[in-house]
Amino acid sequence: MKSLTNYLTFNIPDRVGFVNITSDVEDAVRQSGVREGLVLVNAMHITASVFINDDEPGLHADYKKWLEQLAPFDASPSRYQHNRTGEDNADAHMKRQVMGREVVVAITNGKLDFGPWEQIFYGEFDGNRPKRVLVKVIGE
Amino acid sequence: MKSLTNYLTFNIPDRVGFVNITSDVEDAVRQSGVREGLVLVNAMHITASVFINDDEPGLHADYKKWLEQLAPFDASPSRYQHNRTGEDNADAHMKRQVMGREVVVAITNGKLDFGPWEQIFYGEFDGNRPKRVLVKVIGE
Amino acid sequence: MKSLTNYLTFNIPDRVGFVNITSDVEDAVRQSGVREGLVLVNAMHITASVFINDDEPGLHADYKKWLEQLAPFDASPSRYQHNRTGEDNADAHMKRQVMGREVVVAITNGKLDFGPWEQIFYGEFDGNRPKRVLVKVIGE
Repeated sequence: MKSLTNYLTFNIPDRVGFVNITSDVEDAVRQSGVREGLVLVNAMHITASVFINDDEPGLHADYKKWLEQLAPFDASPSRYQHNRTGEDNADAHMKRQVMGREVVVAITNGKLDFGPWEQIFYGEFDGNRPKRVLVKVIGE
Repeated sequence: MKSLTNYLTFNIPDRVGFVNITSDVEDAVRQSGVREGLVLVNAMHITASVFINDDEPGLHADYKKWLEQLAPFDASPSRYQHNRTGEDNADAHMKRQVMGREVVVAITNGKLDFGPWEQIFYGEFDGNRPKRVLVKVIGE
Repeated sequence: MKSLTNYLTFNIPDRVGFVNITSDVEDAVRQSGVREGLVLVNAMHITASVFINDDEPGLHADYKKWLEQLAPFDASPSRYQHNRTGEDNADAHMKRQVMGREVVVAITNGKLDFGPWEQIFYGEFDGNRPKRVLVKVIGE
């Protein structure tokens, strides 16, 4: 069994933002030499997501608006108990659960085995600080 | 390490629908000859899900109603910017995030290692067109 | 390829509750002898979750309140058709979809490859009965 571990770093200059990381994951698969296997891609922070969806700016704007409706930002300690700790990011912990922590993608014939519109995104919900994503390839 | 890749195809004659695909995944595990390993099952389209839950029609009706409340269908471009592209399926991209893209299931002694009620479903949120699901088995 | 399968058991004395299971997963990784690989941790029941987030009691209280807003408990059969079957837990099937069934974690140098605050939790949404979690390690 072969394996490879890469770490990607981000510092998103906004509270919320999405970055297409598909080519970084493709690079890791190529480096690994794995022809058949799996690649795990996960946020290493608990106010961020990795998810697969469409690279369409209108949809990304829709996601931001929709997540804000489901779990509104509110720095005060009255809505969210977590913000009594001095944090202001309780909403980000919820947005991340809706969008998910990780994706697992099949590798077939040395490539990400994707449908026509699948792209991998890093989703930031509490930016303006350094964050990391883990890419782990296993297979043969 | 052994591996096997299967593709399932669907064309759901409704906008939203759920299909039990557990036996298709069991077939793939059997074909693979894997006794200990993992199977990844994922939607290859970004307006569809693969999820594990109960095969109970009342619950499926509840899911449809609940997802419609969380992310209502609205073809107009006023609620969802994505629908300015000529699409009408922005809601489906959101429903899919709630239900998830994929499941990873353990294979133990050559079988899906499931609790008493776990069943695997394909979840369609923008049907009336051909869609695919990937089944990837790895292990030994 | 090495593999190991462990089952954790829970009987949460409340309808909803969260339990930190990180050390149980670390034990399984140690037992397996795997240095590079993946560990799958999933609820074996369809009204429970395994998720990764912060071990902070205020945040956990926020999650409970937020999930109750998204999918309120209602034993009557009028809101949820599933509850016409004699069950009262339709809400728990929805809460579990928001929080997710499973996590997949990378193993690097024999350890869970985690960011600074990542902790693994069992999430119960229909307690007062025995439930199980599966821990499956694969790698080399």
